[in-house]
Amino acid sequence: MHSLKEITKPIKSELEAFNEFYKQSLKSKVSLVDLITNYILKQKGKKIRPLLVLLSAKLCGEISERTYRGAVLVELLHSATLIHDDVVDNADKRRGFPSINAVWKNKVAVLMGDYLLSRGLMISVDGKDFDFLSTITNTVKRMSEGELLQIQKTRKLDIDEETYFQVINAKTASLIETCCEIGARSVTDDPDKISAMKKYGENLGLSFQIRDDVLDYEGTTKLFGKPIGGDIKEKKITLPLIHAFKNVSKDEVTRIKKLIKNGGKSDDIKTIISFVQKNGGIEYSEKMALELAQKAKKSLIIFQESPEKKSLQNLVEFVVERTN
Amino acid sequence: MHSLKEITKPIKSELEAFNEFYKQSLKSKVSLVDLITNYILKQKGKKIRPLLVLLSAKLCGEISERTYRGAVLVELLHSATLIHDDVVDNADKRRGFPSINAVWKNKVAVLMGDYLLSRGLMISVDGKDFDFLSTITNTVKRMSEGELLQIQKTRKLDIDEETYFQVINAKTASLIETCCEIGARSVTDDPDKISAMKKYGENLGLSFQIRDDVLDYEGTTKLFGKPIGGDIKEKKITLPLIHAFKNVSKDEVTRIKKLIKNGGKSDDIKTIISFVQKNGGIEYSEKMALELAQKAKKSLIIFQESPEKKSLQNLVEFVVERTN
Repeated sequence: MHSLKEITKPIKSELEAFNEFYKQSLKSKVSLVDLITNYILKQKGKKIRPLLVLLSAKLCGEISERTYRGAVLVELLHSATLIHDDVVDNADKRRGFPSINAVWKNKVAVLMGDYLLSRGLMISVDGKDFDFLSTITNTVKRMSEGELLQIQKTRKLDIDEETYFQVINAKTASLIETCCEIGARSVTDDPDKISAMKKYGENLGLSFQIRDDVLDYEGTTKLFGKPIGGDIKEKKITLPLIHAFKNVSKDEVTRIKKLIKNGGKSDDIKTIISFVQKNGGIEYSEKMALELAQKAKKSLIIFQESPEKKSLQNLVEFVVERTN
Repeated sequence: MHSLKEITKPIKSELEAFNEFYKQSLKSKVSLVDLITNYILKQKGKKIRPLLVLLSAKLCGEISERTYRGAVLVELLHSATLIHDDVVDNADKRRGFPSINAVWKNKVAVLMGDYLLSRGLMISVDGKDFDFLSTITNTVKRMSEGELLQIQKTRKLDIDEETYFQVINAKTASLIETCCEIGARSVTDDPDKISAMKKYGENLGLSFQIRDDVLDYEGTTKLFGKPIGGDIKEKKITLPLIHAFKNVSKDEVTRIKKLIKNGGKSDDIKTIISFVQKNGGIEYSEKMALELAQKAKKSLIIFQESPEKKSLQNLVEFVVERTN
């Protein structure tokens, strides 16, 4: 398995330059804002999104000021989203630290999210990166619509494979795709390169989300993130279950749905997990994740071999092979 | 006192056209989104912000497609903000209807806010109104920073008149100013006209917020909005109190601050209100609100007389004379 350290190697110095630029972009005259941004900076996330922007840019041309602005834009959007998510989910931890809402209360957390998002948009406006703005606002729309579609379907426990792909495309793959698109656009106008990077990002994102959904059904404890069966408890029907339903009678589907509706008691969750495992849900989903991962790697075929290309390929494997 | 109906008269048909455009802009393929937007549309807010955009545009030139896009942008931003506010404040009512979070839960409300904001930004991106984007993202940044500054000061019960004006400028006046600026920019490049409309908006916004803060201290029950003394309960120190502190000894200030810190029991709130009334806080604040209102009206001096100009003048009086 590839490590993130190995993957980031070809853009090590650029990632450092990004970190500096990111830090600068967070500065504010309001001391409470500075206090909170310093708290955020201390946490050092994985920075997968800026990493994608930088690698995509280096693969397509020469990393520029515009690339850094794009990387800061996606990271600020991502941070804003996480902070707002923690408010909505009433989460009191994030990356091992108490969440912003836990330390400073909900109001401050929501305002900080708005502040970070507007900072990101302003950097693009100031840099006249109007193509980035077009891409990113469309992404925010798709992400929120995708989540709302999932909630709508979830409440009726009624979702087929086609809708599942529509949902994960909108809520997860779209931002990953946007990172790769912004990276490419920051250095080239070549439509073939841009389109290749978008396809890479989309398939990487889909593969990532399916892997995430499979992890919810796997018998080992997850190191980080939600506990096993978390999705079932939230009444989220994902690919493993959707596929398992295809292989059984209507009565069996009704019986399992009833268990989910009942609120997912510990015993019921065990029953549902073994139902999914027995009826090929895991196997099928893993096959799908692998196929999409192959697709992602294949879309890089138009590029010559390079350390950046190798890293993007390794990142795909990193995502599909991860166990947490 | 002027009525909103009288004020909107010069742009009655344009306001109808706006409403139609606004409705269209909310359409989504996700049925849950449509369900919620229809719910929002049923509530019919006062639409003060689009009103300002349309009146400012008509005063400066000829209302265009660009004007409507600007009006939709500010209204979508405003709606998104209200929905997020209700989540943060755990409010279960809005304009007499159950709030979005009360009906569909917090997660849906936050996502709907994000959706509305991104729709607004997309309309500007698609219309290539990059000047609007620059203005509005800067406004969102100022608003969130302003609120955070207020919270920072509030927690220490330490705010002087200068900081108070900084806060209300950022959190309230900036969006009103932006509405007038966008209206003007949508029809003219004339820097004098744009600058006059910005000044009008800024002073109208300041006057509005001071009036709002005074209403918190006035002895009559407010028809709508927060109950009397709500700000004190939230430990928000506003102009009436800041001024009253200036007229008394240090010990007296300490005594009153102690009452506020104690959480604002009903009797203490009565004491604080009469302290403010006795020490000239209301009188001074009302004088300030009136002065700013005069300033707002004066900034329209460069325009010829017209029904639009009259309406903008009347709107100032409407805001300063309101009793709820």
